[in-house]
Amino acid sequence: MNVDGVHYRTIWLADDGRSVDVIDQTRLPHEFRVARLTGLDDAARAIRDMLVRGAPLIGATAAYGLCLALREDASDAAIDRAADALLATRPTAVNLRWALDEMRAALRDRPRGERLAASYERAAAICDDDVATCSAIGDHGAALIRAAWEKAGQERPVNVLTHCNAGWLATVDWGTALAPVYKAHDAGVPVHVWVDETRPRNQGAALTAWELGRHGVPHTVVADNAGGHLMQHGLVDLCIVGTDRTTAAGDVCNKIGTYLKALAARDNGVPFYVALPHSTIDWSLDDGIAEIPIEERDGSEVSHVRGRAEDGSIVTVLVTPEGAPVANYAFDVTPARLVTGLVTERGVCPASRDGLLGLYPEKAAEAGPGGG
Amino acid sequence: MNVDGVHYRTIWLADDGRSVDVIDQTRLPHEFRVARLTGLDDAARAIRDMLVRGAPLIGATAAYGLCLALREDASDAAIDRAADALLATRPTAVNLRWALDEMRAALRDRPRGERLAASYERAAAICDDDVATCSAIGDHGAALIRAAWEKAGQERPVNVLTHCNAGWLATVDWGTALAPVYKAHDAGVPVHVWVDETRPRNQGAALTAWELGRHGVPHTVVADNAGGHLMQHGLVDLCIVGTDRTTAAGDVCNKIGTYLKALAARDNGVPFYVALPHSTIDWSLDDGIAEIPIEERDGSEVSHVRGRAEDGSIVTVLVTPEGAPVANYAFDVTPARLVTGLVTERGVCPASRDGLLGLYPEKAAEAGPGGG
Repeated sequence: MNVDGVHYRTIWLADDGRSVDVIDQTRLPHEFRVARLTGLDDAARAIRDMLVRGAPLIGATAAYGLCLALREDASDAAIDRAADALLATRPTAVNLRWALDEMRAALRDRPRGERLAASYERAAAICDDDVATCSAIGDHGAALIRAAWEKAGQERPVNVLTHCNAGWLATVDWGTALAPVYKAHDAGVPVHVWVDETRPRNQGAALTAWELGRHGVPHTVVADNAGGHLMQHGLVDLCIVGTDRTTAAGDVCNKIGTYLKALAARDNGVPFYVALPHSTIDWSLDDGIAEIPIEERDGSEVSHVRGRAEDGSIVTVLVTPEGAPVANYAFDVTPARLVTGLVTERGVCPASRDGLLGLYPEKAAEAGPGGG
Repeated sequence: MNVDGVHYRTIWLADDGRSVDVIDQTRLPHEFRVARLTGLDDAARAIRDMLVRGAPLIGATAAYGLCLALREDASDAAIDRAADALLATRPTAVNLRWALDEMRAALRDRPRGERLAASYERAAAICDDDVATCSAIGDHGAALIRAAWEKAGQERPVNVLTHCNAGWLATVDWGTALAPVYKAHDAGVPVHVWVDETRPRNQGAALTAWELGRHGVPHTVVADNAGGHLMQHGLVDLCIVGTDRTTAAGDVCNKIGTYLKALAARDNGVPFYVALPHSTIDWSLDDGIAEIPIEERDGSEVSHVRGRAEDGSIVTVLVTPEGAPVANYAFDVTPARLVTGLVTERGVCPASRDGLLGLYPEKAAEAGPGGG
């Protein structure tokens, strides 16, 4: 999307034709800086230190990381070593493993001399595929926003509430939950986004607010606590969030707090949509609450807040009493019954096994009779 | 309650018999400091600059502020001037006006020579009355915690979730929502409190965590987003929150985000209680969502976070992009249908007009036939 009028992806081949440039997201929202990755170590560090985040972008960075490693040594052993190093940076990231498997499959049977060019080609294709997927999610979701606008007589902007950052910064471009917003905005449908701060890591306040602002989409940051009040007073037309993992029955595991917004949406008759590429669907799971383990992260993310001090320096401050006990659950599960629809690259479907199989009929054979 | 083994109220007559000491709550949770108020200006500043906060404590401070003014001049005109000055510090605080009216009523018909002694007496009585009210709320609410403990076979601590700070720091002692917790804890019923951070002003992370910790009550700070997940997984036995304003029909206006927790409690079969002194009941209101205007506060409370930097200094940091649009709704309304019971100084009742009139029958005549 645009940063003050200039189009960017989150990752791209540098102008030297070899290095890879990424937006250093650890500097956002206070500084827009591009980091150049010139070797495997740079790529591994970019993932580990979260210069890049979001499953699709992590996968894309790993793919390019393998290209950078191949510049040094294109042997099978070197490829395996590089893949292992990249995989170790964020061991639980499903997309990371997927992208590395894709890359290795593309290189395995080629002579060494062709591998380097093939690797850059495949990495570029992984990026382009992600952009196409997100773009399609955006098209399907934008139709929902347009419908809401028309329903309101085209008289006022459509108010969308989102939680966390499922924007272009989490993907290569467009994003998932925010792709429909960008598509609607770019097509001239007036849209305003309520941006949940998203404690404890503040991805909404920092990243979603930044990317919407830079692209020129009207938005307002609110505390996570505010969403219920907004919906009670008719200030939200629809919610759109992303998901880290979706069960075959349509339960959605997303950033902690998503479930609370889904409850408020249900209580106030506000549609609640979840945007996702098919890669987040785990066809082996049904009951998300019972079956998905929820990561507990370090309590310091709750007890401490990082931001820009008045003198411009980046400072971390303690907001709890020193040594206070803290718990930090990273995700929660929104049961399918609270989800109005799933917005995928193939269209919008009910949050149910039947709904998903309608869009992905090829999974019916694999999935078997299925459960609840 | 206790601060590391020593009993404190939030306000007390100093050992010189004239000045008034308060806990400087702007320093919490990082520093425990007592501020001495020696004149009217000190008292006005303590209220205005939020060294003291919480309706009952603001009222008590204003009462003592009038005492301090009387030391200089006990004339009718001086009393009126002092009351006006105190009233101007937080014009919307209902308890502030109530306490000043009480004080003036106690002084009006007395000869000047008796007024000073009478004023200290009345201020002390206002404080003692508040303590008695909160203590009674605590007794009634503690019975609910004890019942939950017994229901669980006395085999594990009772998990209570609370939002914001309705503890002793908001009153003279005991608190409202936390009074039941302290009473249960002091009576040997094992209780653990999930403390909502309470963005944007972090009263939970800063004040509730501090006061529970200093008194020795087990607790864990969580992001406001976490409550739904906790309730989904059986980790909350009951919720208890305070209220700033309660309608005659039992709707509850409390810190923003309360409504979301009430929704999660309902969705998971967790009892949701609201603790209140009768003074928060507005018998003229029925529908809280339609009738209670919600204060919008400065957006900087959302965009900026104050805390202690590593070097010990208190620093305010920006967490949003510079200039990002921000909205800051201070309260929301939880409809009576989501409230399991109201815990008042007279007992526990259903959140309804009939429930409240059962405890306050003297209001039946004034209230008339009533609405929804």
